Amino acid sequence: MLQSPPAEPGMREDEIDTPALVIDLDAFEHNLDTMAALLAPTGTKLRAHAKTHKSPVVAKLQMARGAIGQCVQKVGEAEILAWGGVPDIMVTNQVVGARKLARLAALAKIAQVSICVDDPAQIAALAEAAEAAGVRIPVLVEIDVGGKRCGVEAGPPAVALAELIAASKHLSFGGIQAYHGSAQHIRAPEARMAAVAGAIEAARRTVEQLRQRGLGCPVVGGGGSGTFLNEAGSGVYTEIQAGSYAFMDADYARNTEAPPFQHALFVLATVMSAATPVISVVDAGHKAMPTDSGYPTVFGRPGVSYVGASDEHGKLTVEDPSLRPRLGEKLRLIPGHCDPTVDRYDWYVGVRKGRVECLWPVAARGAMA
Amino acid sequence: MLQSPPAEPGMREDEIDTPALVIDLDAFEHNLDTMAALLAPTGTKLRAHAKTHKSPVVAKLQMARGAIGQCVQKVGEAEILAWGGVPDIMVTNQVVGARKLARLAALAKIAQVSICVDDPAQIAALAEAAEAAGVRIPVLVEIDVGGKRCGVEAGPPAVALAELIAASKHLSFGGIQAYHGSAQHIRAPEARMAAVAGAIEAARRTVEQLRQRGLGCPVVGGGGSGTFLNEAGSGVYTEIQAGSYAFMDADYARNTEAPPFQHALFVLATVMSAATPVISVVDAGHKAMPTDSGYPTVFGRPGVSYVGASDEHGKLTVEDPSLRPRLGEKLRLIPGHCDPTVDRYDWYVGVRKGRVECLWPVAARGAMA
Repeated sequence: MLQSPPAEPGMREDEIDTPALVIDLDAFEHNLDTMAALLAPTGTKLRAHAKTHKSPVVAKLQMARGAIGQCVQKVGEAEILAWGGVPDIMVTNQVVGARKLARLAALAKIAQVSICVDDPAQIAALAEAAEAAGVRIPVLVEIDVGGKRCGVEAGPPAVALAELIAASKHLSFGGIQAYHGSAQHIRAPEARMAAVAGAIEAARRTVEQLRQRGLGCPVVGGGGSGTFLNEAGSGVYTEIQAGSYAFMDADYARNTEAPPFQHALFVLATVMSAATPVISVVDAGHKAMPTDSGYPTVFGRPGVSYVGASDEHGKLTVEDPSLRPRLGEKLRLIPGHCDPTVDRYDWYVGVRKGRVECLWPVAARGAMA
Repeated sequence: MLQSPPAEPGMREDEIDTPALVIDLDAFEHNLDTMAALLAPTGTKLRAHAKTHKSPVVAKLQMARGAIGQCVQKVGEAEILAWGGVPDIMVTNQVVGARKLARLAALAKIAQVSICVDDPAQIAALAEAAEAAGVRIPVLVEIDVGGKRCGVEAGPPAVALAELIAASKHLSFGGIQAYHGSAQHIRAPEARMAAVAGAIEAARRTVEQLRQRGLGCPVVGGGGSGTFLNEAGSGVYTEIQAGSYAFMDADYARNTEAPPFQHALFVLATVMSAATPVISVVDAGHKAMPTDSGYPTVFGRPGVSYVGASDEHGKLTVEDPSLRPRLGEKLRLIPGHCDPTVDRYDWYVGVRKGRVECLWPVAARGAMA
């Protein structure tokens, strides 16, 4: 079942039912404007990653501020965006399975939909799905730029796949995907930059070898919220794929020289127990905020720490008993990782200056297939 | 949006779209039967915890095998069970907020619904909600038996709250809640038993002091899948609140002398990339299986390890290259923690001997409020 919205427009923030996923609209808009201003002088475009926000509403606000399209990880996310009117979507991932590829090909009738590969078998399956649907799908080659996850080696192996794509009547060669996921969270700026320098070099080399084989490379994609200024300034990347920048989470805030964004996404929680000395317990545990990137921090409450999560309990401790959150009090928590947190909720509650302004569905919530 | 079911009855398991939440029905039924057989000689009843399964269908199968009712953590979960026909539901948690308490009181018209408190303010609010709805709600006092989370101290503070409850025209004193959550996952059986011995002693002392004040204690509840045999054999606990026993996850399997249940819950995943040497990548990352209790294990594939999760990628390594899962292959993953994993999906796919037998909605998915 879908959950009911936890608020109505016009309510005060402290009337929102909890746990709830709250967007501070002023901070969110600041972040969108900041990204646009940072990228403008580089000439690199933003293709914002919708795995963070899962919402056609957010996508369109990003595109109204200059984003050229959206990235997704799954076909189910692409469907929600395309059905919601987003015109240009890239699946920054491999997709395996005839059923999924048929769904992807069907979308190509209502939106520009591109996808990544790292194996000849994926290219053959995509060509078959595209032919069956009567569409032509742009396909990018993912190269491994240091994440040791997906992607072929830069250089000749990537060129070989690009030639296979270009040779298909039903596909077109869309470019290369060169995203360095693990680099985003390297704390020290020098080490982060060194990791990205390797990615830039691998991408540059591959583009050059493609050119030597007569293949243009329309897109070089990569760059997340931790490193995008490096990729954008490289002269190699054409598109940045940041997602978290819109919301900014506790983990990105732990980076030294963290990106210049404000915390705009919160889980609003209520203290439901304060019976144990020095501990307050909120109604938001790890089901409300996954802990893969650590515990949340408590917004605007120095001296109060979130120190333990069980399914539906979050344990807060205080340095000084006078700071202790009281039974019934509502607190804004900054999630450790915004992406999986958003994916827990059916609704965003948009708040401005203490009042609920809007409700937006997290339309691609749970779209993992 | 709700997600479409990833399968249809009659399909082969390898035709299920992924990632999917799969129940092995033979193992699941074995677990329900095993629990019934283990508890029968103790006289202690099972009130299975629905925070694990989130499904009226599973609840009714448990009750068909002797469970006297269900536990939940949230009012939203209680609603889904009551609307699905479950007659006896205990909220093993504190609930704060007039809106939530009004919803709880409304349920009391169609089911027996009890709840826990650890503060006089919660009792006053419950009495108000019960009066407004014209119902009488059984209320239990939660005592802290070592988890240092919720609950008042055993003994006099618990008796004081029980007297407040008993004095209300709109509430009845339902008993005590004495669950030791953190003890469930202590690896060594001796240490686990020692932790539970303290809980049993605290409960026994509180029951005795209640009796001295003329208060009967209808229910003493607690005991999870890691320790329930200790509580059930204590002569103090009347109800066991195990949930994970039905599915059994990788974390419970790490306990020494783990409970005698079979792995019945899996995330079925597909290898979508095998481009990087020695690594295979599946389409199930931490959005598909939260990692709060560690990574999943790979079922029936010795030598294959799940070593890294990002949002939508799971990284597998192999000890021996000949064991490497191939592109397109489907694998059963045993989640680290079944409760938050179930809560990621809209559908269970029930499988028996390699064929899909049924689809059940995870009806209380996301019911956090």
